[in-house]
Amino acid sequence: MDSKVNRLAILGSTGSIGQQTLQVVRQFPNRFPVVALGAGNNLALLQTQITEFKPQFFYYKSGTLKNKYDACFISIEEIAALPNVDTVMVATSGKASLLATISAAQSRKRIAIANKEPLVMAGAIITKEVQKHHAMLIPVDSEHSAIRQCLQGEKNKPTKIILTASGGPFRKYTQKQLKAVTPDQALQHPSWKMGRKVTIDSATLMNKGLEVIEAHWLFGVPIEDIQILVHPQSIVHSMVEFADGAVKAQLSSPDMRLPIQYALTYPERVNNEELPRIDWDTIKQLTFEQPDFQSFPCLKLAVEAGKTGGTMPTVLCAADEIAVDLFLKEKITFTDIAALVSDALEKHTGIANPDIEDILEADRWARTFTIKLAEKK
Amino acid sequence: MDSKVNRLAILGSTGSIGQQTLQVVRQFPNRFPVVALGAGNNLALLQTQITEFKPQFFYYKSGTLKNKYDACFISIEEIAALPNVDTVMVATSGKASLLATISAAQSRKRIAIANKEPLVMAGAIITKEVQKHHAMLIPVDSEHSAIRQCLQGEKNKPTKIILTASGGPFRKYTQKQLKAVTPDQALQHPSWKMGRKVTIDSATLMNKGLEVIEAHWLFGVPIEDIQILVHPQSIVHSMVEFADGAVKAQLSSPDMRLPIQYALTYPERVNNEELPRIDWDTIKQLTFEQPDFQSFPCLKLAVEAGKTGGTMPTVLCAADEIAVDLFLKEKITFTDIAALVSDALEKHTGIANPDIEDILEADRWARTFTIKLAEKK
Repeated sequence: MDSKVNRLAILGSTGSIGQQTLQVVRQFPNRFPVVALGAGNNLALLQTQITEFKPQFFYYKSGTLKNKYDACFISIEEIAALPNVDTVMVATSGKASLLATISAAQSRKRIAIANKEPLVMAGAIITKEVQKHHAMLIPVDSEHSAIRQCLQGEKNKPTKIILTASGGPFRKYTQKQLKAVTPDQALQHPSWKMGRKVTIDSATLMNKGLEVIEAHWLFGVPIEDIQILVHPQSIVHSMVEFADGAVKAQLSSPDMRLPIQYALTYPERVNNEELPRIDWDTIKQLTFEQPDFQSFPCLKLAVEAGKTGGTMPTVLCAADEIAVDLFLKEKITFTDIAALVSDALEKHTGIANPDIEDILEADRWARTFTIKLAEKK
Repeated sequence: MDSKVNRLAILGSTGSIGQQTLQVVRQFPNRFPVVALGAGNNLALLQTQITEFKPQFFYYKSGTLKNKYDACFISIEEIAALPNVDTVMVATSGKASLLATISAAQSRKRIAIANKEPLVMAGAIITKEVQKHHAMLIPVDSEHSAIRQCLQGEKNKPTKIILTASGGPFRKYTQKQLKAVTPDQALQHPSWKMGRKVTIDSATLMNKGLEVIEAHWLFGVPIEDIQILVHPQSIVHSMVEFADGAVKAQLSSPDMRLPIQYALTYPERVNNEELPRIDWDTIKQLTFEQPDFQSFPCLKLAVEAGKTGGTMPTVLCAADEIAVDLFLKEKITFTDIAALVSDALEKHTGIANPDIEDILEADRWARTFTIKLAEKK
């Protein structure tokens, strides 16, 4: 078999990252055979994908799917452990893939990880399993992919990570303006096309906070040494600083297919004409500014939860997932999201060094607590 | 012996890079024993350096030096081949170290190369000798160090090199203004503190043209794929683009001690409190613009000489060295520099695949020709 062939399982194939992963696969059909697809809600698209990519296995979460395909229905945890899969693309939303990610680690897979929650909730457990079983964790988030690319071939850990942030659509909004933000407004991200949950998280900057925790686990850098820098053009995807003061940055036009492809072809760089190139005739300047922790309290909540550790990041994720959902349903205001998450973190009795059961229990507690709290408001 | 100990020979120890190399050595005196020092003109400083660093060998070009030291006088070619030297820092000016660089390659040294002329004149010969004898060539120029840092650990060659340029002190000058430029004005570089020759070359942009040729030899990238981008802040020291469209950049406050130290400690990154760190509170923007080939003809002359190859880059270097010297002596105008170099290139009958004798002969021819031509003007 060609050593470059990389057999894929895609969890969350109908989501934004899943669809873009399949766009990359279409460019290199012989290199990336699709062994399994897993999806949550979009039945029509999953059916189209199964017809096109002919996986051996599939998973569908919602409702029933009449199995008229030459493919077996199995769970996402089973998909993640399939012996004829090399790489598991984890592109689900929220905590759906937490156990599947652990399963992929235990099965020595290359894990291309595109959603934050598994690492934020159970970073200690996942990184330990990855190490123990010689699996490989390659981030797909543009920021973490950038950091990984910058660390490639470096002997020493970075002394600092500079995580760039677009600042979201509401940079420089007043508190009054923020309170009045509608879901439609919040779903318009200035530079990235993403799923609904992560787009709202980008607007509150919760997303950037989760990325700080994720970077901590992926690169073993203390949260204190991870700096957030607002960079509205979204061209510099993140930077690392070394002991000698040298900084390395990775840049590209904002297009998720690049970090997706890198996670699949690593350590190789492969030409893909569909990927955009930076045009230095049009990019005249790159600007940087400090983040506004005051106006975007989710950022501070996440960083603090990350520093405390234990089950706190799980509560952060769970409360945020509920709060974002309530905001999208127009049941709470934009600024209520941070307020609900803050209350949940305050009320939670954290557990240090949690096992997976402690994490799942904290997750359940935070969801129930946040729903009840929102009802009272 | 501690494997981190790196025994140094410094050619050009009294120049700007030589002095800064010794500043780095002072921070790590046990790590970098100084075995040999070589200097051209600054006798007083060389004597001070010999007293402080106690080398076993030294070289002095101009006049006589009463040898009252416990050190032997030998040639720079002999210094470059000393068995108890690990790294030869080539920090002379012009072509002085051409043969010493070849000697260092044949003696399997790590060659920290800070001056451009050896590679521009004899890139094919030097890179062949480096490869044949398993020597190592580490660039010290901030741009080439940046490129090397960005390529570190990458499996594939870059598809493009983006060489940044400060644009020099006369960016946006008119032809009339350029003609009236005095040596004093040209010696004021906006962001870098360097020797006189390279400072003038930076003002004419000849320096950037030489860097294109140097990058071609160091990284095996065709000259056509090396793009120059003006970046007045001198924070991004260069960038590389890969087949997938990803760009990597190396950034730092402009301070030559960083690339010097990297060339000595590579592959390690070592903390040095004296090196500046980028402060993202003060750097609000990085700007980029296309170079002005019209106003700075040296840039085009160098790129074209690089594309033609053979003995043309040697003629470029030699004519430029003479012209810069005449300009510093106020015998010709600033814009005459490009005119003299252009005439020399036009009159030269190039030799393809030159050996070292052809190169030295082309060098002699170009010097004589340029001096005569200037006298006629």
